[in-house]
Amino acid sequence: MNTPKSVQYCIQCGTLLTHEEKFGRVRPVCPNCGWIYFTDPKVAVAVIVVQEGKVLLVKRVNPPFQGYWSFPAGFMDGGEAADEAARRECFEETGLYVKTSELLHIHCGREHSQGADIVLIYAADITGGTLEAGDDAVEAGFFSIDSLPPLAFSSTRNTIIKLENSLKNNNQ
Amino acid sequence: MNTPKSVQYCIQCGTLLTHEEKFGRVRPVCPNCGWIYFTDPKVAVAVIVVQEGKVLLVKRVNPPFQGYWSFPAGFMDGGEAADEAARRECFEETGLYVKTSELLHIHCGREHSQGADIVLIYAADITGGTLEAGDDAVEAGFFSIDSLPPLAFSSTRNTIIKLENSLKNNNQ
Repeated sequence: MNTPKSVQYCIQCGTLLTHEEKFGRVRPVCPNCGWIYFTDPKVAVAVIVVQEGKVLLVKRVNPPFQGYWSFPAGFMDGGEAADEAARRECFEETGLYVKTSELLHIHCGREHSQGADIVLIYAADITGGTLEAGDDAVEAGFFSIDSLPPLAFSSTRNTIIKLENSLKNNNQ
Repeated sequence: MNTPKSVQYCIQCGTLLTHEEKFGRVRPVCPNCGWIYFTDPKVAVAVIVVQEGKVLLVKRVNPPFQGYWSFPAGFMDGGEAADEAARRECFEETGLYVKTSELLHIHCGREHSQGADIVLIYAADITGGTLEAGDDAVEAGFFSIDSLPPLAFSSTRNTIIKLENSLKNNNQ
């Protein structure tokens, strides 16, 4: 179930994998050392930074949705804290240091085949740095919700809609 | 960063991996086919089922915390919907079919080395089935919050504390 066809060899000993029922479903298993391949979910973390009623967005340098905009975001590594990963991604993509506060929104379900199974979106406030796009972002900037650029993901759009009233109030 | 020492061979072609800077940190990379090893987070899903003011718990058959109790829970697979995974785990461990509703609580951070980076805990109501422990659970039953068995995880305890007042109200 959900095992990519490219999963062929044991990561521990290099032996060709077989398939066996393990933990409730058929999974690739190493006949030599017993290693089992699990398809862990991809988890993305994002920040929503609002300044003078405008929201911080970045323009994607990579496909899919190349050239479309999203919150500063990226994949979380195993063993990393989710909020720490969110702050790291924001700095890498925008040059801005932030402190995260509330977990505002959780989006479950992949939007595309290379996408995340879960997106955790944190509220964040700028604490330092200088706005400059980097890493997976080719541009970074603040946008009024009345003149948003083309957005890459429905998780971005849904979160902005959810926050629209509070953003408008901040803008007045 | 966070790469287990056991990660040695390419999963696609069986070549011994080298290490290179990829996507912001040093990761195992295949010098033959270019495959990159990412340490995805482990995501667990759990259900909190309350019946007549009592909460459904299962006794763990496996270490760590063998013999201690937790919500029906387990790891989510990549590509699986989180709420669907929670319903599946509940059925596997308790024999009860449930429908999930609100995402009640999110616990971030590993409680032990084999634990989850993120735990998503859903409210759920029983729709069918017969209570019988299975899979990773050796016992399953409903407990009053005034007489809980020894709990395995602080995420379980914290969620029960959070819900304590509503559970007590249901029990009266």
